Amino acid sequence: MQSPALLTDLYELTMLQAYHAEQMNGRAVFELFVRALPRTRNFLLAAGLAQVVEHLQELRFGADDLSWLASTGRFSPRFLESLRDLRFTGDVDAMPEGSVFFADEPILRIVAPLSEAQLVESRVINLMHYQTLVASKAVRSALAAPGRLLVDFGLRRSHGAEAALLSARASHLAGFTGTATVEAGRAFGIPVYGTMAHSYVQVHADEAEAFERFAIAQPDNAILLIDTYDTERAARRVVELAGRLAHRGISIKGVRIDSGDLGEHARRVRTILDSAGLASITIFASGNLDEHRLRDLVAQRAPIDGFGVGTRMNTSADAPYLDCAYKLQEYEGRARRKRSAGKATWPGRKQVWRQIASDGRFERDALRLADEPGSGVALLAPVMRAGKLVAALPTLAASRAHAQAQVAALPPALRALDECSGYEVEISPALRALAAEVDLST
Amino acid sequence: MQSPALLTDLYELTMLQAYHAEQMNGRAVFELFVRALPRTRNFLLAAGLAQVVEHLQELRFGADDLSWLASTGRFSPRFLESLRDLRFTGDVDAMPEGSVFFADEPILRIVAPLSEAQLVESRVINLMHYQTLVASKAVRSALAAPGRLLVDFGLRRSHGAEAALLSARASHLAGFTGTATVEAGRAFGIPVYGTMAHSYVQVHADEAEAFERFAIAQPDNAILLIDTYDTERAARRVVELAGRLAHRGISIKGVRIDSGDLGEHARRVRTILDSAGLASITIFASGNLDEHRLRDLVAQRAPIDGFGVGTRMNTSADAPYLDCAYKLQEYEGRARRKRSAGKATWPGRKQVWRQIASDGRFERDALRLADEPGSGVALLAPVMRAGKLVAALPTLAASRAHAQAQVAALPPALRALDECSGYEVEISPALRALAAEVDLST
Repeated sequence: MQSPALLTDLYELTMLQAYHAEQMNGRAVFELFVRALPRTRNFLLAAGLAQVVEHLQELRFGADDLSWLASTGRFSPRFLESLRDLRFTGDVDAMPEGSVFFADEPILRIVAPLSEAQLVESRVINLMHYQTLVASKAVRSALAAPGRLLVDFGLRRSHGAEAALLSARASHLAGFTGTATVEAGRAFGIPVYGTMAHSYVQVHADEAEAFERFAIAQPDNAILLIDTYDTERAARRVVELAGRLAHRGISIKGVRIDSGDLGEHARRVRTILDSAGLASITIFASGNLDEHRLRDLVAQRAPIDGFGVGTRMNTSADAPYLDCAYKLQEYEGRARRKRSAGKATWPGRKQVWRQIASDGRFERDALRLADEPGSGVALLAPVMRAGKLVAALPTLAASRAHAQAQVAALPPALRALDECSGYEVEISPALRALAAEVDLST
Repeated sequence: MQSPALLTDLYELTMLQAYHAEQMNGRAVFELFVRALPRTRNFLLAAGLAQVVEHLQELRFGADDLSWLASTGRFSPRFLESLRDLRFTGDVDAMPEGSVFFADEPILRIVAPLSEAQLVESRVINLMHYQTLVASKAVRSALAAPGRLLVDFGLRRSHGAEAALLSARASHLAGFTGTATVEAGRAFGIPVYGTMAHSYVQVHADEAEAFERFAIAQPDNAILLIDTYDTERAARRVVELAGRLAHRGISIKGVRIDSGDLGEHARRVRTILDSAGLASITIFASGNLDEHRLRDLVAQRAPIDGFGVGTRMNTSADAPYLDCAYKLQEYEGRARRKRSAGKATWPGRKQVWRQIASDGRFERDALRLADEPGSGVALLAPVMRAGKLVAALPTLAASRAHAQAQVAALPPALRALDECSGYEVEISPALRALAAEVDLST
């Protein structure tokens, strides 16, 4: 059983021990942001806040955690004793899940006693990074195949169980219809979809028998996998079966194609089905899909009603990580900034302001100090105060609707799959001045 | 709380329901293999078997699982009742963790009643795929920087918590010294390492004060992060501090550099430390590292004693997934094979035989039917029989030693980071004949 408190890097605990020895626990401000977008992303979608809030609410060191830490010989009894009562008592501000954002814009701010804000660093990044990564990848499939059924097929090649569950959530937030992962359906209330595997066809004496048995076992709901041996021959078997089952009042819902030239097979299968008056049988495609293959299939008007998208989406295969960071921006009221080569950050508490045109289109953003006045819409909003939720978080359905509205408001060039010249994020003069001032003092 | 039984794709359950209706539950043979190696891998390292065994031993549907499945309206009460008693009662054969393997070679075989062998597909792949992926990536860092301390730094950008824990395990198996992830240390007994973050330096009034406080809080054990502002200036502060602390009997263990030209900084810092007689202070480097950067730093003789390797290793960034599959090879004694375009498999139960030269070097492999005679070493060995372990699994330390020995026995060209012409895996004539025979019958 994994402990939320020990899901952290050792250095967080060694720093906490030093802070404890120094009796240093002032108010610290950390912000989470992405330094630069991957070349293949024109925008990002914030996701993972609900799991961060859950982590902060559940954070505590259990007796087992403390005795294991004691057994390492690295920590003093007095320090470990101080961990027993540690709870998250801080404030959280964040962009709502599903918000569009760009480089250098904080999507989460934690203001808390130093020990709490520091301890949670590793897991807060871990949760926000992965869901943001997947939502920002999955939304591209939704943009490439508008109106199509999109199902997350990625459990098997996701990086572990949590990745499978969280990518089902993040992809649904970003516009996927549902997931094949049963536990994700239960945990998050996401619609669950399923067809059949090649093994089902193979264990039967022949393909026609397999189709018939499956269709009877799932009356009106069966999606038959037709590429195990010969796709078009299987489609003709489906026609023959549909005729026989019609007499028994059973219909077949769809077929799935998982290999070969999906567009070409779909066209031939559609013709076979339509010629037999089976226009109601849908065609579902899967197999190494990503947004580029979806765009191509849609462009060539392949008669495919839905897509199973797995591995490349769940692993964000063309950009499997984001250059994100959770950085100290202020301590006890004094602004801070890291100046390391290539990794400098903007100091202080910040707010992101978005200018929106009269037709609702996003025009540009401005990064300002939180206490500067701004115009447009302020994107970071209060989530927790003193360790308690300010209000219930939006439902996943509400966040999904928010994401859809956000993406619809983007300039069209940013919604396209190809690289574009980007989106303007202005840095306020006051923020630039503060950065210069902080540099002088260190 | 996630349920092991529901960590599956919906289609596994719809197929099981059809099998239940058909009263079809004969003995099925599935094998797990990788169809093709990523271009940037000359060999793969098998990993994840211990977690697969754990999953099979814990597999059961709880009352909550069954009532949730009932609530979906997709399953008949009689089928759900049959799931209540489902346990894994099958046989498992596998290559030991840490074994080197190549394309098309099964690393795991499950022989079990059809329903059990089918149900576990999604999670068995999920567990074997990710650890094999990470071990096969991490071993390249171990090969690039022999004798250096290598620490997994990847919790924050791993794809979720399980990925962080399992990649700590898989990278240790592949040769990493330890991990920064505390829970991985507890769960798997892996050595845990930690330094300090930039935020520690930044919350203090100045860097010199931060170093002093940290060194006193971790006497003789402190690794000071020296790149927050100016790396060489910080190194001189370390010299000055070491002099003052020496009078109090406290030494400094090391420094860490996390940005800029790591080799150049390390050389300058080494000179500063050595000139002050501080040869015992080690230099640790981190920041966007992978096997290629490690190789370059080692080639230029950068005086770096250890490396923190994170994101690119934990996400296997240059190849974030493997083209692996878990395929039905035999049902009720009859060989089976999938013929889908580009995804054909070798049918039947198979064994992998490895020819080993008199000096221990691996020469070539042969893929044969399990009941064919072979020569050399047979790589798949019994792990479970009738749902029970045949013998205790090797410890992680033993698997790590096995991996090291396996890698040492590879032809040198395969151990290099660059692509090489590959390794010969012969397909036996009997296996080819069986494949042709199976194709004729379907």
